[in-house]
Amino acid sequence: MSEPQHARAAACTRDADRLLPTDPQTRAIARDLYARVADAPIISPHGHVPASLLAKDEPFGDPAELFVVHDHYVTRLLHAAGLPLSDLGLGARAVEPREVWRRLAERWHLFAGTASGYWLDEELSTVLGIRTPLTPATADAVYDAVQARLLEPGMTPRSLFSAFRVAVLATTDDPLDDLADHRLLQGAGLRVLPTFRPDAYLDPDGRDFVERVERLLSATGSPQTFTGYLDALAARRAHFVANGAVSADHGVLEPVAADLDAAEAERLFGSVLAGTADARQRATFRAHMLLQMARMSVEDGLVMTVHAGVRRNHSTATLRSFGPDTGHDIPVPTSYTDGLRPLLERFGLDERLSLILFTVDETTFSRELAPLAGFYPSVRAGAPWWFLDAPHAMDRYRAAVTETAGFYRTSGFVDDTRAFLSIPVRHDTARRADAGYLARLVREGRLTLPGAERIADDLVDAIPRAAFRL
Amino acid sequence: MSEPQHARAAACTRDADRLLPTDPQTRAIARDLYARVADAPIISPHGHVPASLLAKDEPFGDPAELFVVHDHYVTRLLHAAGLPLSDLGLGARAVEPREVWRRLAERWHLFAGTASGYWLDEELSTVLGIRTPLTPATADAVYDAVQARLLEPGMTPRSLFSAFRVAVLATTDDPLDDLADHRLLQGAGLRVLPTFRPDAYLDPDGRDFVERVERLLSATGSPQTFTGYLDALAARRAHFVANGAVSADHGVLEPVAADLDAAEAERLFGSVLAGTADARQRATFRAHMLLQMARMSVEDGLVMTVHAGVRRNHSTATLRSFGPDTGHDIPVPTSYTDGLRPLLERFGLDERLSLILFTVDETTFSRELAPLAGFYPSVRAGAPWWFLDAPHAMDRYRAAVTETAGFYRTSGFVDDTRAFLSIPVRHDTARRADAGYLARLVREGRLTLPGAERIADDLVDAIPRAAFRL
Amino acid sequence: MSEPQHARAAACTRDADRLLPTDPQTRAIARDLYARVADAPIISPHGHVPASLLAKDEPFGDPAELFVVHDHYVTRLLHAAGLPLSDLGLGARAVEPREVWRRLAERWHLFAGTASGYWLDEELSTVLGIRTPLTPATADAVYDAVQARLLEPGMTPRSLFSAFRVAVLATTDDPLDDLADHRLLQGAGLRVLPTFRPDAYLDPDGRDFVERVERLLSATGSPQTFTGYLDALAARRAHFVANGAVSADHGVLEPVAADLDAAEAERLFGSVLAGTADARQRATFRAHMLLQMARMSVEDGLVMTVHAGVRRNHSTATLRSFGPDTGHDIPVPTSYTDGLRPLLERFGLDERLSLILFTVDETTFSRELAPLAGFYPSVRAGAPWWFLDAPHAMDRYRAAVTETAGFYRTSGFVDDTRAFLSIPVRHDTARRADAGYLARLVREGRLTLPGAERIADDLVDAIPRAAFRL
Repeated sequence: MSEPQHARAAACTRDADRLLPTDPQTRAIARDLYARVADAPIISPHGHVPASLLAKDEPFGDPAELFVVHDHYVTRLLHAAGLPLSDLGLGARAVEPREVWRRLAERWHLFAGTASGYWLDEELSTVLGIRTPLTPATADAVYDAVQARLLEPGMTPRSLFSAFRVAVLATTDDPLDDLADHRLLQGAGLRVLPTFRPDAYLDPDGRDFVERVERLLSATGSPQTFTGYLDALAARRAHFVANGAVSADHGVLEPVAADLDAAEAERLFGSVLAGTADARQRATFRAHMLLQMARMSVEDGLVMTVHAGVRRNHSTATLRSFGPDTGHDIPVPTSYTDGLRPLLERFGLDERLSLILFTVDETTFSRELAPLAGFYPSVRAGAPWWFLDAPHAMDRYRAAVTETAGFYRTSGFVDDTRAFLSIPVRHDTARRADAGYLARLVREGRLTLPGAERIADDLVDAIPRAAFRL
Repeated sequence: MSEPQHARAAACTRDADRLLPTDPQTRAIARDLYARVADAPIISPHGHVPASLLAKDEPFGDPAELFVVHDHYVTRLLHAAGLPLSDLGLGARAVEPREVWRRLAERWHLFAGTASGYWLDEELSTVLGIRTPLTPATADAVYDAVQARLLEPGMTPRSLFSAFRVAVLATTDDPLDDLADHRLLQGAGLRVLPTFRPDAYLDPDGRDFVERVERLLSATGSPQTFTGYLDALAARRAHFVANGAVSADHGVLEPVAADLDAAEAERLFGSVLAGTADARQRATFRAHMLLQMARMSVEDGLVMTVHAGVRRNHSTATLRSFGPDTGHDIPVPTSYTDGLRPLLERFGLDERLSLILFTVDETTFSRELAPLAGFYPSVRAGAPWWFLDAPHAMDRYRAAVTETAGFYRTSGFVDDTRAFLSIPVRHDTARRADAGYLARLVREGRLTLPGAERIADDLVDAIPRAAFRL
Repeated sequence: MSEPQHARAAACTRDADRLLPTDPQTRAIARDLYARVADAPIISPHGHVPASLLAKDEPFGDPAELFVVHDHYVTRLLHAAGLPLSDLGLGARAVEPREVWRRLAERWHLFAGTASGYWLDEELSTVLGIRTPLTPATADAVYDAVQARLLEPGMTPRSLFSAFRVAVLATTDDPLDDLADHRLLQGAGLRVLPTFRPDAYLDPDGRDFVERVERLLSATGSPQTFTGYLDALAARRAHFVANGAVSADHGVLEPVAADLDAAEAERLFGSVLAGTADARQRATFRAHMLLQMARMSVEDGLVMTVHAGVRRNHSTATLRSFGPDTGHDIPVPTSYTDGLRPLLERFGLDERLSLILFTVDETTFSRELAPLAGFYPSVRAGAPWWFLDAPHAMDRYRAAVTETAGFYRTSGFVDDTRAFLSIPVRHDTARRADAGYLARLVREGRLTLPGAERIADDLVDAIPRAAFRL
């Protein structure tokens, strides 16, 4: 098995033991555990890379476009430091890419210790093989080196897909997407799977909700009744299943489900479409649709993932000027125990359901997610996500979840990224963090070395395959 | 002082330094601190071992019965892995014990890293002296070895009570229990103390509440008035005190107390018995009864323990088929500051009250329990309980509580177990975790070694004795 | 640069590596990072030392007065151990100071592992150079040694201000304070800055609210209208700005802001003064005033600090007997995301605002404060405060905040103390904790040593200067 590009580059420029535990004896165990899985194929069952990127397979654009403009992890910290997003190439006004890059370089120390700083360092050094550290003085040189590297052969998305050893990559897609790109890629031998993400069609408070529902109904030729609406959603899910989808993803503020009878649901559907439903009724509708999605998952086998607890678009002025996903989605306190109970009462014991619960409220790991995943055969505790998919947060997740639910009721790592080049880096981060946690258990006499080895292997393969039915 | 059986077995098969800190220098300090208390007598002031087990003193049943069927920590993880509880010997259908054991062995890797896995490993190796690791291949051999061991002399409950060096064991009992078993055991020189647990008689939402209240009133010959009801409870508490009880335990969803005047309480009592009280009124009644229990504790000296924050019987279908305590009690977000204030306003400064607050919501440790225990002479921060009585969670507890409240405002370890054989194992776990935390403080120059030694000693003796007035 | 008194004393009696990480290699890195900043000048931009202490510059009183009676961190733990506050010199009854000191000494083990125990140890050993450990047997000797030391030359407040290398010290002051002491001190070359703390004039539920508002209006000659009230507040802020203030501090139970139109605010002002506003209306008024304070901060440039989430005076009986700030302020669950949104919608993107959010609910660090500070240029995540300004809690803060927001969106350390002698000790604690955290990042290959050095330097200088506009 030949050493992949990114692993070789890392050997030159990065500390080979990075992220591993500080204690030398624990580190030595972790090093061996990590080595087993460092080059294992990548299973990426949830993320936001557009299928079109791989379908078109064009060379990447300029370094600013690739690493700054579209990465809201990066732009938000520059914005927090006082730089208007418009100075970073967001919004209407054009900004010279090299200028954006310089602005990043001048403020690069702000990223010290952050997850995004780590990923970007890794992408430059281990993925692209750039050995010059980024500083204000080297900004132009690094820019040129990255630019040159991006134009080399082997640097197109599909080549990197192979070089990164991606076994499966799931995208996140609109229910009305025709999924032509996915078919094309699967035809070309790349396992790129769509994910059904229906939020905009389920939440009466979402932008253009009524219009979207109408488009959904007309796309499937369904009548404007609640049953027609459910049929339309089921039809689109079937289209996703037929094109390889293994999961449906649900982003909700509150993880709350409601079980309504048919007549009540029909009435509520009428009033949300008519715009006469009040806030409480709209919330009930949303909650009922979460339960309906679970029902459909039971029927069509799509794994149900729930990403809960984020107040989206906190800054209205920023939303208006620069659109959503611009760095101001902020978590809120979250609880699953009572809110999801109606759903679990209906389907929680059903072996056909696989429900993966993600959180950005760490308090739920030991309090709710591990206990739920430790009893319901349908529930798994999702890997750390968003603000938590960082080395120390990953360690806190394992510490909080494992003692109650073990390793086998977790989802396996999910990179959840829009940044294609960050995929190997993020999986590498998770593998190192997990190796460190396992090593600690070995050193504490709680796990044998062979036991830890099996778990390390399973965490990058059997566990995500089981969770996502791959 | 002769080495006890379980300590000798441990030397053969387990890492002597298990659970101690990873850094060698800190570990060396921890090892010495642990050695001081490793064989100290066990004070178990709160748990769920039935007194009848010791009163009857019969040999333990088969390995499945002993280690699987009645341990919902174990059955829930097997259930989560897809095994119906009925396949594990729960419910009506009989299952061959050896078959249950095999099912555990086949899925033993699921328990890696969990607290229940650790305890079971310890029970097999250090308590029973089984040296064969449990695997699918060794399932039958281990079963036979355990079975044989259980029939050896010295393996009856009372013999083990001595071998484990149990100084005090508190059980948890129904207020109407006659406590004959406790009297018998105390007569035989075993300090087995009952604990008054009146939840079912205080919560209008509990099963058979009205019937239970009627039984209580008739058992004590009290009139069906609120005063009669309070007198009946006080009479049963007196019966417990007379039989050695030192504490009364209260399991509540929300730790909320309410101070009502006599007339209002009388009216509310009437309406909850008549079934005309609405949800809010029933909650007020429950909250008032928590305050009344504090008042009675002030009067009769029973330590008041509160175990809050668990949504019991989350899965109704499971409850119906298999009863309560079958692994689906799930924690909810909890707060004590405002909810308990009426109780603390009344009795918090009263030196006659000892109130120990337990939580399954870790966020309350630094935010509420340590500050409350750091001011009110009546309040102590309870040791980690349930999902949190695991090595890393214990360490988080000490880290969260100590810097505000120190060691002497905590309760000392409470094993809270139904599994008799796990008692020495759980106390050993806590002793190792505390030794590790103390060693860290020594290594950080925050504690002298003699200071740490005194605390290590006190944590297994003076501290629980003070908290539980033993 | 000559070695300061307190550093020399420390070398004699304390572990030079105290608080540094346990792993030797990480500790070695931390030691070097700490050495860079150990003797750096102290920037103390928020605290509660009264300006009069430095203005009068009288020798400190007796040891009990200095270290026990007025330090509610100390008295509360003694109170929790069963000692009435009246036995400690609080309240009307006089208690012999030496007797108070003996009572502390007898219970000194209760403080093992606590932050207040650590500070007091440090104050005695490193600040005062007392080498005898405090025990019941040494109580009188230590008392005498402390007493003697306090009378030595160089032990007056202003001399210590120099010896401690305090570059800036902010006090916390009533809006109607004339600030004469601050002018006097600034005239004498001491940078002692007032802080505008208007809570009592903004919260209709506060004691004497109406009377205070009337005093405010009459002091500024403003009419009794909402506009007059706002003008009066602005005038007093201007007085503070003119006397060197850089910040306004706001202590609130819930961090909630409300945006009202002028007519509604005027009506509400009328009803809160008339005493006819209900609880909800009073809360709305409070919330609107928080927003008004942000508006004024935008206009006059005072940094806005918010200390949220504490239920003050939990024990009414204690409040009545001994007054506020006597150890029974208890935190509650806190959330900023939705509550502060109206304020951030109005001013969050305004570069004139610097808003520092402090919490005593650790759950908000990763969930809310880091994400808010990682986007809004106005927001900074405040350093650990109150129950959390302790070594392990500081480490948890860095671990929770840094991966999302880095180091440069935090406030820098704030000692928040009334205890003048504890200032160098608390800053030293923070410097050690931060050195330890940075060292961990270096050892994990996430930060270069020069990168960590720059951050260590900035944390004690550039970062608090930027946050507080010094």
